[in-house]
Amino acid sequence: MSNKNICVTLQYDGSRYDGWQRQGNTDNTVQGRLEAMLSKLFSQEIEVNGSGRTDAGVHAEGQVANFHVDTPYGPGKIMELMNQYLPKDIAVTDAKIVDARFHARLNAKSKTYRYRLSTGFVRPVFGRQQVLWCPEDLDLERMREAAELLTGEHDFTSFCGNKHMKKSCVRTVTSITVEEVTTSVGDTEYPEVWITFTGNGFLQNMVRIMVGTLLEVGRGERTPSDMTAILEAKDRERAGAMAPAHGLTLRKVEY
Amino acid sequence: MSNKNICVTLQYDGSRYDGWQRQGNTDNTVQGRLEAMLSKLFSQEIEVNGSGRTDAGVHAEGQVANFHVDTPYGPGKIMELMNQYLPKDIAVTDAKIVDARFHARLNAKSKTYRYRLSTGFVRPVFGRQQVLWCPEDLDLERMREAAELLTGEHDFTSFCGNKHMKKSCVRTVTSITVEEVTTSVGDTEYPEVWITFTGNGFLQNMVRIMVGTLLEVGRGERTPSDMTAILEAKDRERAGAMAPAHGLTLRKVEY
Repeated sequence: MSNKNICVTLQYDGSRYDGWQRQGNTDNTVQGRLEAMLSKLFSQEIEVNGSGRTDAGVHAEGQVANFHVDTPYGPGKIMELMNQYLPKDIAVTDAKIVDARFHARLNAKSKTYRYRLSTGFVRPVFGRQQVLWCPEDLDLERMREAAELLTGEHDFTSFCGNKHMKKSCVRTVTSITVEEVTTSVGDTEYPEVWITFTGNGFLQNMVRIMVGTLLEVGRGERTPSDMTAILEAKDRERAGAMAPAHGLTLRKVEY
Repeated sequence: MSNKNICVTLQYDGSRYDGWQRQGNTDNTVQGRLEAMLSKLFSQEIEVNGSGRTDAGVHAEGQVANFHVDTPYGPGKIMELMNQYLPKDIAVTDAKIVDARFHARLNAKSKTYRYRLSTGFVRPVFGRQQVLWCPEDLDLERMREAAELLTGEHDFTSFCGNKHMKKSCVRTVTSITVEEVTTSVGDTEYPEVWITFTGNGFLQNMVRIMVGTLLEVGRGERTPSDMTAILEAKDRERAGAMAPAHGLTLRKVEY
């Protein structure tokens, strides 16, 4: 038996969870499920550190988390056991032993989130829980101009969903791209718009509020240059509505 | 007002339905939902003819159905209204006015079904309701040899799930392909095997029993040449187990 620090990559369909972060008694969170399962599996109390919280209903294709465990097993076996006992909407896609000091949140350098909009006339049936159906003519050029103004180091107070945030709201968003993509199911093509955000960290609800604000720009309800005024105001009331959780996926975390 | 024969193409996620075909009182079928919705929408009793039944849990990317209705609306408006009132797991992807004598089942010339196997080590999380997870090393060459022997005009009694079938079980399967495909989610690749069947008609459970039998060949539990003996026996007991419904999708119907 030796104490190992295990780092895992996780995918989850967030539809039926109350987000990543463990809550009190009636726990229905991804972190809570993982900790309960690991503690039982290894007969020891295990705490899981995620790279960051995801909101209720948000998905992950590459969430990263670590935990310390006394076990003779190697990472391959641990991954196999975890997948055996996890519910069908959570899976471990990679596991490795890392340095004892590695911490999934503290060592994270950047995160990438993607928001998917399905913009066609026909409502998507397959994978509908991972996109927001939004059958509208969006002006993508205007959205890209607005996205450009949100990129960089800024105080994102206006895009923070936590009204009682006491720490710094300064974050660096290194890139925001707005792409047109076509997916197809059978003979039907589904046009989509993918808004992809990479940054050194994101505040609570920040990506969803940025998406909601960019959507208002795409519809012509705001101008791209409004972004500068919104950032400067440091006032949540100035930014747009928060986009629904189910269109958002944590794509990857880099260290 | 004129009586129109409307032909629609439908996609549905069959997960929560008791199949296509309308049942008695406690109806939870796709046909039942469509008829109830259309009858209410147009204030007249409407019967929907599907190209064929799909089993409980089976999906469709291109089911075709027709119905007669007295309405001043054109097909575009009808499609829009249907999509507005249908549940989120059923969508109309095309609608057109067809000749009064057109019947979706009687005029169907061929149907294509696809069964998706996810064969990788990691259980798929996204789209898991549309594939069967089957982390095994399948011998695809043997499966292709067996598939070849099932192709053509045969009496498929051994592959029919209805023990009381009184009509002819002769059908023509024009092609069965076994393909390796890779899908990816984030940085994780998911190897899949797609078994695609095209034919002039399929008996109850026939595709799922063929898939189950081909899986047994792929695992080395049967030889490809067993297929000939199974067909000749005209005995359901001789074929393999029926594969689960959720891996199967009706891809398209041709007229």
